[in-house]
Amino acid sequence: MSRTTATDAPIDGALPDHVERALAEYLAVRHAGMADQAPSFGSAVSSLARFVLGGGKRLRPTFAWWGWRGAGGAGGGPEAEAVLRAVSALELIQACALVHDDLMDASSLRRGKPTVHVEFAAKHRERGWLGEAERFGAAAAILLGDLALAWADDMFTGAGLAPPRQAAAQQPWQAMRAEMLAGQYLDVLVQATGDESGEAALSVARMKTAAYTVERPLHLGAALAGAPEPVVEGLRAFGTDIGVAFQLRDDLLGMFGDTGVTGKPAGDDLREGKRTLLMSVGLRRAAEADRADDAQVLRSALGDEALTAEDVERVRGLLVDLGAVAEVESRVDELTDRALGALERVDLADEAARGVLGSLAVTATRRTS
Amino acid sequence: MSRTTATDAPIDGALPDHVERALAEYLAVRHAGMADQAPSFGSAVSSLARFVLGGGKRLRPTFAWWGWRGAGGAGGGPEAEAVLRAVSALELIQACALVHDDLMDASSLRRGKPTVHVEFAAKHRERGWLGEAERFGAAAAILLGDLALAWADDMFTGAGLAPPRQAAAQQPWQAMRAEMLAGQYLDVLVQATGDESGEAALSVARMKTAAYTVERPLHLGAALAGAPEPVVEGLRAFGTDIGVAFQLRDDLLGMFGDTGVTGKPAGDDLREGKRTLLMSVGLRRAAEADRADDAQVLRSALGDEALTAEDVERVRGLLVDLGAVAEVESRVDELTDRALGALERVDLADEAARGVLGSLAVTATRRTS
Repeated sequence: MSRTTATDAPIDGALPDHVERALAEYLAVRHAGMADQAPSFGSAVSSLARFVLGGGKRLRPTFAWWGWRGAGGAGGGPEAEAVLRAVSALELIQACALVHDDLMDASSLRRGKPTVHVEFAAKHRERGWLGEAERFGAAAAILLGDLALAWADDMFTGAGLAPPRQAAAQQPWQAMRAEMLAGQYLDVLVQATGDESGEAALSVARMKTAAYTVERPLHLGAALAGAPEPVVEGLRAFGTDIGVAFQLRDDLLGMFGDTGVTGKPAGDDLREGKRTLLMSVGLRRAAEADRADDAQVLRSALGDEALTAEDVERVRGLLVDLGAVAEVESRVDELTDRALGALERVDLADEAARGVLGSLAVTATRRTS
Repeated sequence: MSRTTATDAPIDGALPDHVERALAEYLAVRHAGMADQAPSFGSAVSSLARFVLGGGKRLRPTFAWWGWRGAGGAGGGPEAEAVLRAVSALELIQACALVHDDLMDASSLRRGKPTVHVEFAAKHRERGWLGEAERFGAAAAILLGDLALAWADDMFTGAGLAPPRQAAAQQPWQAMRAEMLAGQYLDVLVQATGDESGEAALSVARMKTAAYTVERPLHLGAALAGAPEPVVEGLRAFGTDIGVAFQLRDDLLGMFGDTGVTGKPAGDDLREGKRTLLMSVGLRRAAEADRADDAQVLRSALGDEALTAEDVERVRGLLVDLGAVAEVESRVDELTDRALGALERVDLADEAARGVLGSLAVTATRRTS
């Protein structure tokens, strides 16, 4: 638990390592306090720490850091470590989101390891404890997710930012957490209502990915640098488009991605009944072309857990044939172009940061995993 | 949702009304923002607001407020409204705790109304939505509990406290949230392991009730008044003993309380398998007296959901007969006396506050509901 990632490299060039170091340092202190006070909860907290330190792309801290750098924050300056801690706290919000999301979706694996509720249910079973193992696992996941959310705030508040910076960052910080939860709820709701409209799919993408993952982290970073309003607005406009494009790319990869590269079986979104824009466009185009049978194939595949590889292949073929893939691909391109145009026009204080943000945008939307 | 409780009474004399007003004002603003941005989540947030504004004893804000008053905070002074908002935020932590706890315990009623997960599962069923209603209800309860926890921080941070006060309050604020979660986890764990020791029961009482409900709110209030260390320590010592005594009284009421007064069926703790100090003392005394059959009756009653009123009556009789009730009662008295002694010795800035804290202590430990 006291592991830290030693690195002498400048933060700019090794951001994920520095984020991991900041998280490891923070969790070591909080974990030690808890282990003294309540040893059995301390051991549960070790699982949370392993989860937080166990990888992930550190996307949100990356966008926040480069928002700060772009708006004039000095990567090697006296505020850099405090800003690093503040943006690393985003990974604790994300830990809450993932632990709770895995429980809500009853997912058993995350990054190739058992999810938190599955880990604690297994522990209950191994020890032959009383009551239902699943219920124990769910309780542990709920409480550890809550702890991650509370610690996100504590880490952010205690990052050591100058008070005016801290105050300026409150609005994006507060909006981001609410939007994350709103996005999760909309996602669950759209699956429950079976809303097939493109608007429903886009509203989930806007809230859950665009706002929470890209736009607000950039906003937060810019606010931490004390950026003027037009810079904040420019970065947010860039972030919203990139965020939606990022989600559409994710949807395409979920259907067509190479399992060996993405690490998850193609078609899983389909089996889980995820209402993506891709499926929505497919259904709309089938209706426009009076292809009721094809629409029926798409519709009945959504949420069918018993779908075979051939069934998935058939859906893929239809989505290509109906022009849905091309339409979503061109939407990704349009959004990316518009985002890069917005980025070009922002009056950034640092040209190197503009270059990095542009690369991040391209990587996020043209990626294959 | 925009309901506010108008009251011209001084805060001291009508604290629960003022807490409710502060919460209603805060929730109205956040709800309006959310309803604009994501209307369907906005409607879910209305349920959370109803839950928060739907009563409860406002215990934690009350202890925090009187800790602040006792340490010299001026109840009608310029800081009073900011402190009111800061201590009212404790009710949002409590909303998270209750919504998540009800889900973990699969409780269907809270204050005579359906719990949040039950309410949303019913909505899913009524509308004939896709997927499992229970899973939808669980997701809504997880996300609304998370939102309450995030908003607790936002309300506290945005209360308008002077920065040095805010900074001084960080330590108890952070400790309190972690201790609440540790207490919940220990509670779940002790039920799972079936730990019958008095130490296990007391450690849950210390964390969940003493620390989270009484000691830390007092600590927080004292810190908000900038109290010197001995005052903080004195109030915390008072709070720890009162908090444990409060929990032991709760356990006694759970077994012997008048349902018409407590609002919950006597024996429910027993059916749920709650490992209270009362049961632990009963088991210990049965063992000491070589009354193995009686121990067996107690042990098999714990967690037996099919327990009849006669079964509960038999357990009650045994707990009296074994002297467990008298032992726990005298423990409550000792703790209360020690707490009142500690309160007497604290160098408080306000004698009226000392009187109120003393009354709160007596009410909390001698109450009948």
